[in-house]
Amino acid sequence: MNSMMKDLAPYPATHRIVAVRHDARQVHIAWDDGCESTFHALWLRDNCACDACRHPQTLERTFLLIDHPEPIEISAASVDIEGALQAVFAGSNVHQSRYDAGWLRQHCASDASRPERQAAPTLWAAAQLLELPTFHHPDIMQDDATLASWLRALLEVGVTLVDLMPNVPGTVPALAERVGPLRSTSFGAIFEVDSKPDPNNSAYTALGLELHTDIPNVPYPPSIQFLHCLRNEAQGGGSILVDGFRVAEELRRESPGDFRRLASEPIEFRFHDAQADLRHRAPVIGVDQGDRVTEVRFNNWIRGALDLAPDRVEAYYGALLHFWRLLREPRFQVRLRLEPGHAIVFDNRRVLHGREVFDPATGGRLLQGCYLDREWVESRLRLLARRG
Amino acid sequence: MNSMMKDLAPYPATHRIVAVRHDARQVHIAWDDGCESTFHALWLRDNCACDACRHPQTLERTFLLIDHPEPIEISAASVDIEGALQAVFAGSNVHQSRYDAGWLRQHCASDASRPERQAAPTLWAAAQLLELPTFHHPDIMQDDATLASWLRALLEVGVTLVDLMPNVPGTVPALAERVGPLRSTSFGAIFEVDSKPDPNNSAYTALGLELHTDIPNVPYPPSIQFLHCLRNEAQGGGSILVDGFRVAEELRRESPGDFRRLASEPIEFRFHDAQADLRHRAPVIGVDQGDRVTEVRFNNWIRGALDLAPDRVEAYYGALLHFWRLLREPRFQVRLRLEPGHAIVFDNRRVLHGREVFDPATGGRLLQGCYLDREWVESRLRLLARRG
Repeated sequence: MNSMMKDLAPYPATHRIVAVRHDARQVHIAWDDGCESTFHALWLRDNCACDACRHPQTLERTFLLIDHPEPIEISAASVDIEGALQAVFAGSNVHQSRYDAGWLRQHCASDASRPERQAAPTLWAAAQLLELPTFHHPDIMQDDATLASWLRALLEVGVTLVDLMPNVPGTVPALAERVGPLRSTSFGAIFEVDSKPDPNNSAYTALGLELHTDIPNVPYPPSIQFLHCLRNEAQGGGSILVDGFRVAEELRRESPGDFRRLASEPIEFRFHDAQADLRHRAPVIGVDQGDRVTEVRFNNWIRGALDLAPDRVEAYYGALLHFWRLLREPRFQVRLRLEPGHAIVFDNRRVLHGREVFDPATGGRLLQGCYLDREWVESRLRLLARRG
Repeated sequence: MNSMMKDLAPYPATHRIVAVRHDARQVHIAWDDGCESTFHALWLRDNCACDACRHPQTLERTFLLIDHPEPIEISAASVDIEGALQAVFAGSNVHQSRYDAGWLRQHCASDASRPERQAAPTLWAAAQLLELPTFHHPDIMQDDATLASWLRALLEVGVTLVDLMPNVPGTVPALAERVGPLRSTSFGAIFEVDSKPDPNNSAYTALGLELHTDIPNVPYPPSIQFLHCLRNEAQGGGSILVDGFRVAEELRRESPGDFRRLASEPIEFRFHDAQADLRHRAPVIGVDQGDRVTEVRFNNWIRGALDLAPDRVEAYYGALLHFWRLLREPRFQVRLRLEPGHAIVFDNRRVLHGREVFDPATGGRLLQGCYLDREWVESRLRLLARRG
């Protein structure tokens, strides 16, 4: 915990402040490695962490910028004996604030520092992922360092294999709960993938399953998917994995227009059975404000009827089929056969999965699965970093 | 159920097809009310609902457009004795499909028909909402028509009052479960709002609470919030509600630049305690592809430190304070005092709520609350419409 900033994260003192200058609106800091930071008076005032500005127990901001008449101006700035920045705000709002140097450095918003804090995923085609990043179940359950390595691989690569799983139901939800609470869906918190007599979903048949993402028909599809193989004696039923972010980038390279169509035109996905009729419209390719790919939704069997003006239908199908053909190219596909004691854990909002047809007459095939939202992976890593 | 289309929704036959013409790529339909529809060959083929194209049990699409060599062309189109459209696809992909007229009409994508299917919310300031739409708890629990009216009001207005609630804990989660499964958060599935000795959150103090939305620090904040008043004897603690969509539109009107800043610049929200460190970056105002407001995230006490280039900080704070000043204007604020036996139910991704400071020495104040995702409200309404 960084008590000066009322922040449970540690913010180690990686660098020292060597010079401070200010005017009424900004503080400029020079660091011992030559880096420079600029902090605005409003930003500094808003982030004061004294007992009057942040609640000592909840650690939450109680300071209300709106109640402080402008202008908010800096009358003094210096480094104190602990290496922290001291700032004095002038005028009718006179106030003194302190800022830990490690925390300030982590919040440096210079053009050099901001991108450092954005971890980009490592995209892959089949040639880059000859072996899935693999972790042993007992190590993840007992050792925090392995837990952290596994979770970092999951965020970076989007898929991992966990082996040495005890071959009993309940193992995989306990693995997920080592990270965070399970995400419930209309299929429940824990599900079995089996060939069922009265299926409400294609997964519960022996059909081959085209590459897809699960549950794109809700505003926030579950991200981390766990599939634990308990039995796999049937002929067929191999698993296929594709990095949707990688293929989306390939689409963008081959046809910026097709990429833009899939990234901007929302289409409906829909699941319905006796208990639910859940529909959601979203683009197949989700992008953030910087046009980076952040999500893929692709599922042929629950894709709704397109609701597009007739003159745009053909171009849209063209873009969809272009993406679909790329997804089917072997160069992007990792194929594996799940064995009992193995679990694949992957980011369902990034990695598409598929299944080859299997013949239930030749033997049983049973998976147990559950979901976990990605924010709990990030949260767990932050909690582990507190102890580090 | 519409069995011709393998769709659990009914699609009543509101209109009759009076003329059909086609070329290889499109079918044109004239309806008995003068409306016209155009359906593309690819769209029609993709939406065929015969047993070979949709699974008879799961009702999901098994047809794989990608496996059918182009071009997909129409060789015949006509209306059959049941009033359904019959289409024949030519060439190596010869196939015959039927489409129910009611279903086709509901999927008409003409410029006139598409907007009809998009329900716009009714925005409000205080003057438009002198009384909250109010429903009686026993009626909602026993009568499907009241349930449907309540849910429609919730989607349209964003806030409702439920009265005649039994004054016992557990009543409000049972009310929510009449609609769909509860949404769990880091505060659990059911929470008590009380003044607690060791709070991890400002809500669990006696502090006044600035207008806010709950849990903006995750990718998908819970939408429908239920707050059931079990006790309210303390002085103070009045509730304030504001339609965030209405105020966002006011901001757009007064300053398109400020609106654009809040709608495009993602900022961090963050909650952390001993069990979690959940952070998410998103714009304060969420808009869809058509620039319609779809979400508001506003919470001063868990707003993170802005991560913006220094020269953009001042303009961003200016926009944030502009929005904040509007939120505080009495003309937008509905004020009420929750009484035992009352619950407010509102869309937390649209309606901001606040609380006046209260004095726990003057008497107890206890609310029980839970969340429900908005998609379950829509799903429940669709299930109710199946019986209608």
